[in-house]
Amino acid sequence: MKSVISGTTKLYGVVAHPIEHVRVQALFNPYFDKHDMDAVFIPIHVPPEGAAAAMDGFRRMKNLNGLVITVPHKMAFMTLVDELMPTARLAGATNIIRPEADGRWIGTNLDGMGFVGGLRDKIFPPEGKSFLLVGTGGAGSAIAATLVQSGIARLTIADVLRGKAEALAARLRAAVPDVPVDVVAANPDPAGYDVAINATPLGMHDGDPLPFDPAKLEGDTVVAEVVQAPPVTRLLHEAAARGFRVLQGGNMLDYQFIEMAKFFHAAA
Amino acid sequence: MKSVISGTTKLYGVVAHPIEHVRVQALFNPYFDKHDMDAVFIPIHVPPEGAAAAMDGFRRMKNLNGLVITVPHKMAFMTLVDELMPTARLAGATNIIRPEADGRWIGTNLDGMGFVGGLRDKIFPPEGKSFLLVGTGGAGSAIAATLVQSGIARLTIADVLRGKAEALAARLRAAVPDVPVDVVAANPDPAGYDVAINATPLGMHDGDPLPFDPAKLEGDTVVAEVVQAPPVTRLLHEAAARGFRVLQGGNMLDYQFIEMAKFFHAAA
Repeated sequence: MKSVISGTTKLYGVVAHPIEHVRVQALFNPYFDKHDMDAVFIPIHVPPEGAAAAMDGFRRMKNLNGLVITVPHKMAFMTLVDELMPTARLAGATNIIRPEADGRWIGTNLDGMGFVGGLRDKIFPPEGKSFLLVGTGGAGSAIAATLVQSGIARLTIADVLRGKAEALAARLRAAVPDVPVDVVAANPDPAGYDVAINATPLGMHDGDPLPFDPAKLEGDTVVAEVVQAPPVTRLLHEAAARGFRVLQGGNMLDYQFIEMAKFFHAAA
Repeated sequence: MKSVISGTTKLYGVVAHPIEHVRVQALFNPYFDKHDMDAVFIPIHVPPEGAAAAMDGFRRMKNLNGLVITVPHKMAFMTLVDELMPTARLAGATNIIRPEADGRWIGTNLDGMGFVGGLRDKIFPPEGKSFLLVGTGGAGSAIAATLVQSGIARLTIADVLRGKAEALAARLRAAVPDVPVDVVAANPDPAGYDVAINATPLGMHDGDPLPFDPAKLEGDTVVAEVVQAPPVTRLLHEAAARGFRVLQGGNMLDYQFIEMAKFFHAAA
């Protein structure tokens, strides 16, 4: 972090509720320090009912240069900014916003890029591959939006709320018509995909059911996780025990971080 | 400053326009660090027209524990908080605010305490002394409000806007009837007071006229200054050259700082 905060120091932050667990400031402050930037990154605790008034206040803070938006605000902030980039519109959520030179705020969604970055670096590039994605909440929708924009062969999505999966599939098909998107029932068969992703919260707690059955995995399917804690969920543990390659959820923020820093720097 | 900002770090700040020159964060961050407090103090640049919306936003930031309010916001924030302590009401301005446990924000004004603290420490206690105060803007009003609450013998005030001086005098007399408060014309005769204070901006720039004539000083009057830069104004220079004791304006923030820290800690 910047060793001295002065009157010229630029502000960045993360908006969350609760706030205690957030860790993105632990990535940004050392980054600012390393690059000798006159900036500081702060946690900002805003309960859900305060989001609109808080955003109105952020607009008046002229040395505030960007915000990471996280749980439970990713959908609310879609309607609080002035413009959304395509990935945020497609995902139905924004996880990072910045003011432009003219004072308008623009948002995008880099969650999917974090997932794809980790996949690309640790396993293989997404191009030409087939994906099963279980869970179409904030993280799942963002991953789906980025995947269909990444030259994949096909995407199959599932959610216990089937209507939510259908609505996401319709948005994805309309935006990127050349990628086939199918919807299947919850607890789907993971056989036959290059990558099977859990984007539900299942696996955070002991005794959670599994999003799909690892016993049905075949061939060399990669099993990927969105859940960050524990780092090795029961799903990943059982897949690895059967000899399948796995990708942990904790990679997403690390791979997303550099894209976040680029987005903040890209302000006009 | 706190070496690591985490999700549990409490926020404090200073609201100003412009922001580049503010220096109160340079007092608070080392203080937090020295006392091993999980807190950070940030500059917040809010233009005048954004004050109301910014305050509404600050109310939603639940890890924000207090704000110093400075130029040009000291009067506007009087009407933006939920409660004012007596010195702020008397001064007609607030320079520090904090949220109470129930979410209500309360403001006070410590500018006068900064002046009186410096006087007490460097020269003599104010009790029983007579004061001439030239200038009834934010700083002058705050000094006047604290002086009449400090057991002084009498206060004489002057302002080029005589109506402003009369209005302040009326508030002071109503609040503290046993201290005589007189109003005299601008450019007053400084003879016969224990302390003669410049609380106008005169002296910041070369060629500024003097708030009163140092050639008319008599006896052992102390000449005090509110202007912080230059540290030795022409007024102080000429008074010192004539053998009078002087008190520099730069002392005010330093003596006020510990009162600010106490005010933040005193939140219910």
